[in-house]
Amino acid sequence: MNNDVLDLTRELIARSSVTPDDAGCQPLLASRLENAGFRTEFLRRGEVDNLWAWHGSEGPVLCFLGHTDVVPPGPSDAWASDPFRPDLREGFLYGRGSADMKGSVAAFVVALEAFVAAHPEHPGTIALLLTSDEEGDAIDGVRRIAREFGEQGRAIDYCLVGEPSSLERLGDIVRVGRRGSLTGTATVRGVQGHVAYPHLADNPIHRALPAFAALAAREWDPEPYPEFPATSFQIANFQAGTGASNVIPGTASVQFNLRYSPHWTADALVAEVESLLAAHSLELSIDWHRSGEPFHTADGVLRRAVRDTLRDSLGLRPDENTGGGTSDGRFIAPMGAQVVELGPVNASIHKVDERVSVADLEALPGLYLGIAERVLLRGAE
Amino acid sequence: MNNDVLDLTRELIARSSVTPDDAGCQPLLASRLENAGFRTEFLRRGEVDNLWAWHGSEGPVLCFLGHTDVVPPGPSDAWASDPFRPDLREGFLYGRGSADMKGSVAAFVVALEAFVAAHPEHPGTIALLLTSDEEGDAIDGVRRIAREFGEQGRAIDYCLVGEPSSLERLGDIVRVGRRGSLTGTATVRGVQGHVAYPHLADNPIHRALPAFAALAAREWDPEPYPEFPATSFQIANFQAGTGASNVIPGTASVQFNLRYSPHWTADALVAEVESLLAAHSLELSIDWHRSGEPFHTADGVLRRAVRDTLRDSLGLRPDENTGGGTSDGRFIAPMGAQVVELGPVNASIHKVDERVSVADLEALPGLYLGIAERVLLRGAE
Ligand SMILES: [Zn+2]
Ligand SMILES: [Zn+2]
Repeated sequence: MNNDVLDLTRELIARSSVTPDDAGCQPLLASRLENAGFRTEFLRRGEVDNLWAWHGSEGPVLCFLGHTDVVPPGPSDAWASDPFRPDLREGFLYGRGSADMKGSVAAFVVALEAFVAAHPEHPGTIALLLTSDEEGDAIDGVRRIAREFGEQGRAIDYCLVGEPSSLERLGDIVRVGRRGSLTGTATVRGVQGHVAYPHLADNPIHRALPAFAALAAREWDPEPYPEFPATSFQIANFQAGTGASNVIPGTASVQFNLRYSPHWTADALVAEVESLLAAHSLELSIDWHRSGEPFHTADGVLRRAVRDTLRDSLGLRPDENTGGGTSDGRFIAPMGAQVVELGPVNASIHKVDERVSVADLEALPGLYLGIAERVLLRGAE
Repeated sequence: MNNDVLDLTRELIARSSVTPDDAGCQPLLASRLENAGFRTEFLRRGEVDNLWAWHGSEGPVLCFLGHTDVVPPGPSDAWASDPFRPDLREGFLYGRGSADMKGSVAAFVVALEAFVAAHPEHPGTIALLLTSDEEGDAIDGVRRIAREFGEQGRAIDYCLVGEPSSLERLGDIVRVGRRGSLTGTATVRGVQGHVAYPHLADNPIHRALPAFAALAAREWDPEPYPEFPATSFQIANFQAGTGASNVIPGTASVQFNLRYSPHWTADALVAEVESLLAAHSLELSIDWHRSGEPFHTADGVLRRAVRDTLRDSLGLRPDENTGGGTSDGRFIAPMGAQVVELGPVNASIHKVDERVSVADLEALPGLYLGIAERVLLRGAE
């Protein structure tokens, strides 16, 4: 099983699947799973490839969730080895996607093969859902498939996401939810003019400053939300001015992002931000982009299965939190699924010389197998 | 005298003297004044042409101050007629520089010729100082010549600047000083990071907002300074952000300009702004650009001469104020000179289809002559 996961990860890295191009990863994985007795469904939507592979015909449904696409490598020269030629050096496998998340995907497949080989008549359904659009727009990927599944009444009860959750060593952190993300782009309007004639102008920067200072200073959560970082407001871009030092600009553009706990919904935040800004005398419009509501998986079958597996296999107790960015888990959670994320160390993801520890890679299939057995075979034990 | 000023303005407009190129304007004017008995000195400094022409050998010295350079016309297609081909239409002379300030320069020369013809043995000295670098860097123009004159002990007692001071009709506004101008470019430093990990970053926009909001809200003058608009602080440019909505930038750049009354000096403002910013926890550096200290001419010989001339010639009483941008008068005032600015209507300056009213143009030499007679011949009357 161990050589297998290394070889399969290499094969995936060699396919330069820059988002949203699958570059043949999913057909490769599908044919392996079909040989193991899985049924597969290719769900191409727009330019995005999605794969649903499953074994079993009843509930509950445990789904491994992953993506085959990777972020662009940037200039290849900056890498010590070609980003799309897997390279093994000093205990690490290098290549774009090695940690995010072709290693996890390979480990999923190896674990799935082992699971059905060991338990051909297992209760429930074990499945794999892959997309080639996690790093890109995330429109025609898991967001869309989850919506379609919902409309068709197809359920997912447990979802294990392979995103690289670990900080310093494999399994030290698992994600049991994610904050919501909401982006606003405000255009504050004033009246352009010459700095020598301020009474004929209305400086939109001066209008914006105290209003956005108040937003930046606000405490958003009335009290800490369990297992969530505090809701945070950050201005990412503030652009105003013609470049000339003697011209008062006519508009200012302020783009901000909120990462929020389940204290909030996107609708409630939009209303709150707009009401806070309305208290200042501003002429403005805001373009809102809702990236996903927060989700949280309470302690239960899946979290216990992950915790027990890490204890038995690695002898550690993970920090179970909801930090970090968003993941496709946000689209599965609203189906009523328990969602937990467990994957390798994320230190090098989206960077040059992305890498995964070979030891971690070889440990992953056993972890995923152990979790699947704990979730689906409990009643059978 | 009237046809003469129109023809001479046309000749100047036809020379495309885009700053700092004099394009032959000053030699043309110098040879006319030499024919009238003036002595001339060409003071080329760097790429800039300056002309000093004078008649008389004792004090006091009355100097007409002007510039032969013009701002670029922009695309010629946008003009109704070629910007460097003077065109007379419906009572206006069109062309780049017609109002700012080749019309005034032509009127100066016509007035100077008339003055020495009528008063060959006049007391004092009457002079013309021209530069080709008023619209550009303003380094090797009047700034430099005034410094050299000061070092050489050459005095200017009265200076009449021909900048287009009028708003709706000729002579409705004269400038009796100008505010100072000071520009600061602040770089606020933070720590770049991902919006999902705000505790690992330090958002320089958030740091800058309350600090600059306080500067924007401040009242700068303890009380109105007579004949000056209020000191004003304006942020012209605020630039921060990578463009990505999920990245907290590492720095923010804020460029602001102060137009200030004689309540302040540049040094005092620099100290005040830096002390106000120091009250906030900011890591920042500021690049300062001092454009010129304020100057103010108290009521006296020159202001009375201008006022009486406008009353007698045009039957109006001008608003004597210090509004508007800066002018080269700021370099002459520190020599101890009384400085007043009087020129045509400024509505079209620096724009397409720049124009001067022919009636105003034809009235200007008489005004300048009347002022010179009142300043230099008082004792002789
Ligand atoms: Zn990922
Ligand atoms: Zn001018």
